[in-house]
Amino acid sequence: MAAARTLRIGLIPGDGIGREVIPAGRRILEALPSSLGVKFSFVDLEAGFDTFKQTGVALPDRTVETLKKECDGALFGAVSSPTTATKGYSSPIVALRKKLDLYANVRPVKSVAPSPAYPEPIDLVTVRENTEDLYVKEERTYDTPDGPVAEAIKRISTRASTRIATMAGEIAARRARVRQSLGDSSKQALVTVTHKSNVLPQTDGLFRSSSFAALAQQRFKDAGVKVEEQIIDSMLYKLVLQPAYYDVIVAPNLYGDLLSDTAAALVKSLGLVPSANVGDGFAIGEPCHGSAPDIAGKGISNPIATLRSVALMLDFLNEEEAAARNYKAVDGNLAEGKLLTPDMGGKAKTNEVVEDVIRRL
Amino acid sequence: MAAARTLRIGLIPGDGIGREVIPAGRRILEALPSSLGVKFSFVDLEAGFDTFKQTGVALPDRTVETLKKECDGALFGAVSSPTTATKGYSSPIVALRKKLDLYANVRPVKSVAPSPAYPEPIDLVTVRENTEDLYVKEERTYDTPDGPVAEAIKRISTRASTRIATMAGEIAARRARVRQSLGDSSKQALVTVTHKSNVLPQTDGLFRSSSFAALAQQRFKDAGVKVEEQIIDSMLYKLVLQPAYYDVIVAPNLYGDLLSDTAAALVKSLGLVPSANVGDGFAIGEPCHGSAPDIAGKGISNPIATLRSVALMLDFLNEEEAAARNYKAVDGNLAEGKLLTPDMGGKAKTNEVVEDVIRRL
Ligand SMILES: CC(C)[C@H](C(=O)O)[C@@H](O)C(=O)O
Ligand SMILES: CC(C)[C@H](C(=O)O)[C@@H](O)C(=O)O
Repeated sequence: MAAARTLRIGLIPGDGIGREVIPAGRRILEALPSSLGVKFSFVDLEAGFDTFKQTGVALPDRTVETLKKECDGALFGAVSSPTTATKGYSSPIVALRKKLDLYANVRPVKSVAPSPAYPEPIDLVTVRENTEDLYVKEERTYDTPDGPVAEAIKRISTRASTRIATMAGEIAARRARVRQSLGDSSKQALVTVTHKSNVLPQTDGLFRSSSFAALAQQRFKDAGVKVEEQIIDSMLYKLVLQPAYYDVIVAPNLYGDLLSDTAAALVKSLGLVPSANVGDGFAIGEPCHGSAPDIAGKGISNPIATLRSVALMLDFLNEEEAAARNYKAVDGNLAEGKLLTPDMGGKAKTNEVVEDVIRRL
Repeated sequence: MAAARTLRIGLIPGDGIGREVIPAGRRILEALPSSLGVKFSFVDLEAGFDTFKQTGVALPDRTVETLKKECDGALFGAVSSPTTATKGYSSPIVALRKKLDLYANVRPVKSVAPSPAYPEPIDLVTVRENTEDLYVKEERTYDTPDGPVAEAIKRISTRASTRIATMAGEIAARRARVRQSLGDSSKQALVTVTHKSNVLPQTDGLFRSSSFAALAQQRFKDAGVKVEEQIIDSMLYKLVLQPAYYDVIVAPNLYGDLLSDTAAALVKSLGLVPSANVGDGFAIGEPCHGSAPDIAGKGISNPIATLRSVALMLDFLNEEEAAARNYKAVDGNLAEGKLLTPDMGGKAKTNEVVEDVIRRL
């Protein structure tokens, strides 16, 4: 047997329930059977609003450097945002995405069980560009006789649009392979390109044309990946009305942010939805929920989004078998529906859910 | 009896089913009982993609001038967008909103009947800023070694933010008055201010602070209008999960576009949702749906969104009694549920629905 590969994982809990779900993520990695041939070591890292309040910096250099030099991947919890503009504060996860060039934000959304509103299974992934668009955060304010006016830059590049669409194509092809291996013929591989090029012909037009060019590669055609497009307003409309139709949806940064939260609502809980911030050879798993100050410290936060984010991170670190094990254990817990946290209508504590998932590994 | 007031209405059908629904709007205005003390005259006006293909201009000067000089209000159908960037073409409705300074886009969304997903009635209005944000359409493209990069300006002004929030406050107060007069105590007046100031502290921060300042006016307090805020991603999430909670939602242009389509999906059909583009002393009623080339010419398009847009236009032209009559007739048609177009699961033709609503006036 080959020597086990050891992956070093940075743990960045952040604020609020981030401090409860990231330890849950660590536990599941530690519990993975050694027969999978992968082991993990961990390093605790700081970031967030509490860090900002203590040190004046939301994302310490040490966190970025350690991730770059020592780590293969990371888990990020959640951070609180100050409710009023706070001088010097700026979101650490947004900064991290850019500093590590984690250019894709991948968010799979999957329904637990059919619901009256959605009898057909929802199983889609939003693939969000993660480094540019309005998130370049280049803003300025100037005075006018009618009071201050502020401007922000929305930047869209050929390069970022091409690589995100390429990743969307790869994910669609991979999903089709997995479905095929499971004998599941419920849907065809489809990438839906979203934009608002009817209003923004240059920026969103560039996202659109770069995406179509990237997705026209022969390897995607060979994999049977169909390509469609939707204007973002109509995309949201159709997403709510017929989510089962969609497979992979690729979007510029801001639309991707909005699409993924809307998709999460269709499966009723942000507590279920994972994400991965993915670059070349690096991935940060991150639950899609926030820091939930209202329930922080009570030990009742839903760990599922984090456990799935662990699996997603493993997928992108090429540990597909470990990832599959993890997904299956989580799906088993949800399908049985006995040990659920309060947001899911249950009474279980975070730790009870984690232990149940570990038993199923 | 006072002499009847005559309102001159510009009719701009545009493309596709716009040509079927705008005549429906005209018919209902002509059918309003003369006892209401208001009469209508009409002028046919051109705009749209077909106009562009014939003349090279999507919004002819004559249309703008006639609206400005002769009209009190207008009805706008829908326009087709070219699927690929077309030199010289740009959306006539976006241009019209700016040229006539129709600074508010008001979209009420109301459920027809309780559904399994939404047992509580949905009754909310999105109030969308209609002149700025990314819709200023200031874009540029430049070359880099990695290929072209494009930028767009998102502009947010104190003035536009203040007046849209003020209109949102007025609409919330008016809705509360109407509910009170009907003995309906189901909800409190609420304006929810949406933004993404955690990522865009200057632009969206300015929208946020201007809105809160405008909504802090004593007259809104006196009317019992509560003010809350939501980050736009979380707003979409909550909108899908608990739409019944919301009353008036105010948003910058782009978020408003996305919010109103999402809200429309919750009541299952864009064919039901009206809008008004409102400025000082002028209003254009506009159904929220598109030009639907797939069903154009078949006489089966749903006229309800247009008939409600007529009512909304009348509201803003201070013909509240005529508006109320119109709303009630439409609600009667929907509540009975016998004469519905195919998008609503029925078999009726556009004209049959219009005639049914007219009978109920
Ligand atoms: C917290 C915020 C800056 C962030 C974003 O907008 O990207 C969040 O909404 C997300 O989706 O991860
Ligand atoms: C057609 C398009 C330019 C328009 C917009 O984005 O405003 C439409 O989506 C709308 O909401 O009226």
